[in-house]
Amino acid sequence: MKLARIRTADGTRPVLIDADGAARDISSVVDDITAQTLSAQELSKLAVLDPASFSLITGDYAPVIDDVRRMFCIGLNYSDHAKEAGMAIPEEPILFMKTCPATGANDPIILPKGSEKTDWEVELGVVIGTRAHHVSKAEALSHVAGFCVINDVSERAFQAERGGQWTKGKSCDSFGPVGPWLVTSDEVPDPQNLNMYLDVNGERRQSGSTATMVFDVAHIVSYLSEFVTLVPGDVISTGTPPGVGMGMNPPQYLNAGDVVELGIEGLGRQRQEVVPYRP
Amino acid sequence: MKLARIRTADGTRPVLIDADGAARDISSVVDDITAQTLSAQELSKLAVLDPASFSLITGDYAPVIDDVRRMFCIGLNYSDHAKEAGMAIPEEPILFMKTCPATGANDPIILPKGSEKTDWEVELGVVIGTRAHHVSKAEALSHVAGFCVINDVSERAFQAERGGQWTKGKSCDSFGPVGPWLVTSDEVPDPQNLNMYLDVNGERRQSGSTATMVFDVAHIVSYLSEFVTLVPGDVISTGTPPGVGMGMNPPQYLNAGDVVELGIEGLGRQRQEVVPYRP
Repeated sequence: MKLARIRTADGTRPVLIDADGAARDISSVVDDITAQTLSAQELSKLAVLDPASFSLITGDYAPVIDDVRRMFCIGLNYSDHAKEAGMAIPEEPILFMKTCPATGANDPIILPKGSEKTDWEVELGVVIGTRAHHVSKAEALSHVAGFCVINDVSERAFQAERGGQWTKGKSCDSFGPVGPWLVTSDEVPDPQNLNMYLDVNGERRQSGSTATMVFDVAHIVSYLSEFVTLVPGDVISTGTPPGVGMGMNPPQYLNAGDVVELGIEGLGRQRQEVVPYRP
Repeated sequence: MKLARIRTADGTRPVLIDADGAARDISSVVDDITAQTLSAQELSKLAVLDPASFSLITGDYAPVIDDVRRMFCIGLNYSDHAKEAGMAIPEEPILFMKTCPATGANDPIILPKGSEKTDWEVELGVVIGTRAHHVSKAEALSHVAGFCVINDVSERAFQAERGGQWTKGKSCDSFGPVGPWLVTSDEVPDPQNLNMYLDVNGERRQSGSTATMVFDVAHIVSYLSEFVTLVPGDVISTGTPPGVGMGMNPPQYLNAGDVVELGIEGLGRQRQEVVPYRP
């Protein structure tokens, strides 16, 4: 099942994505896609619906759930990216937080005021469906409602040149496109074998597979649950494969007018136009 | 004005604190203290109330607002603490995030599973009242609804010995007591001249003043607003003065049965019992 949210003149509508990738309005069945919708019980009520029996609806994609309260990110989690960056593979997952306002899959990327190093990162997003506290790796995936595409947009000067900790470069307005779809776990039998890519102005920049993750999704969910009690609606962005702008020689960053397109196998695509700072 | 929230058998009640420090139930006037309550307009409606005209109410303190969505923390922000730790004074504020469930001022501190280095940090909490995006230092304090006491409880091994970034050691359940009161800005004419202390089992461990902050509250709010658009209800914990357990020789950490008491001039006191891990 592919769930999403579409912005209309009358507000945001919950939708199912049909076999052709079109959105079907299910607002007659649920008010919205929220953290509460992500339990196995609630998802099972939607799983029996036939998308074709609902009306087509068009509009921009909103974030996949109504309120992305917490976004946890894992740093340096692809072995080929670590190698490219000349950095050691971490011994434990590196955790940081991102806290920009929730952003739709195709919303513009707004360059922050004074930014010269805004960069891209295609990442597999994991959406928590049920509370997870000290869960084992074997149990971990049962706490995952589904998966989505995330662009972990990052300002490298803010992240690395302005004093400690990464949150500073990760949390500007528009820096967290999530979606277009929330693809439920049953449709992603092996989250460790998904191809992923990111293009800037039609040129391939990132190309990878979740197969080269240092710590797989089950490991990450289990590990995080030792430190933070994960709750429904929490989103984990699991790190990026090689090909970010910072790693190019010379480094290349986003400019107003650029177009970023990215996607993950089975999870849909995002497209963002880069726009100048707007006060 | 001192606002707070009291837990009762019938749910959480918003209260005003009277001249004697007692709680007066104002649930006939407002449903709860939320992010929306923090605007100047809403606060002005409460400021005209006479606490004495409302009923006394007793119970445990809940967190000062109904939903602490984001807690931003500033690291190494007291010059005497930096000196004690033998570390350089930061050139820019060090930002990290804490994301434990909101915790009442006197709720127990639960030792995380396997923890051997749970530590204390008395800090001045700043509660944002109105949206702040690229605000100047001169404007910054006008975006602050009020102040409170925070214990930025920290697990030092999780924070510093488990791979990068500090969030991991800051976000365990019970690690963020906030309160007891939200003291509105008009009652805190100079947030840079407040004495603060923390005792463990009756022995003074931390003793300091907000006068020795490296970056003052106005600077912090202005600076953060360059990177993150601050919104009503955001809480900023502004760093800790000397005397944390990690800095003692030898280091000392919390054990089950310990009692932590802390306070800041004019903002009230917290008291936490330390309890063992509860699965």
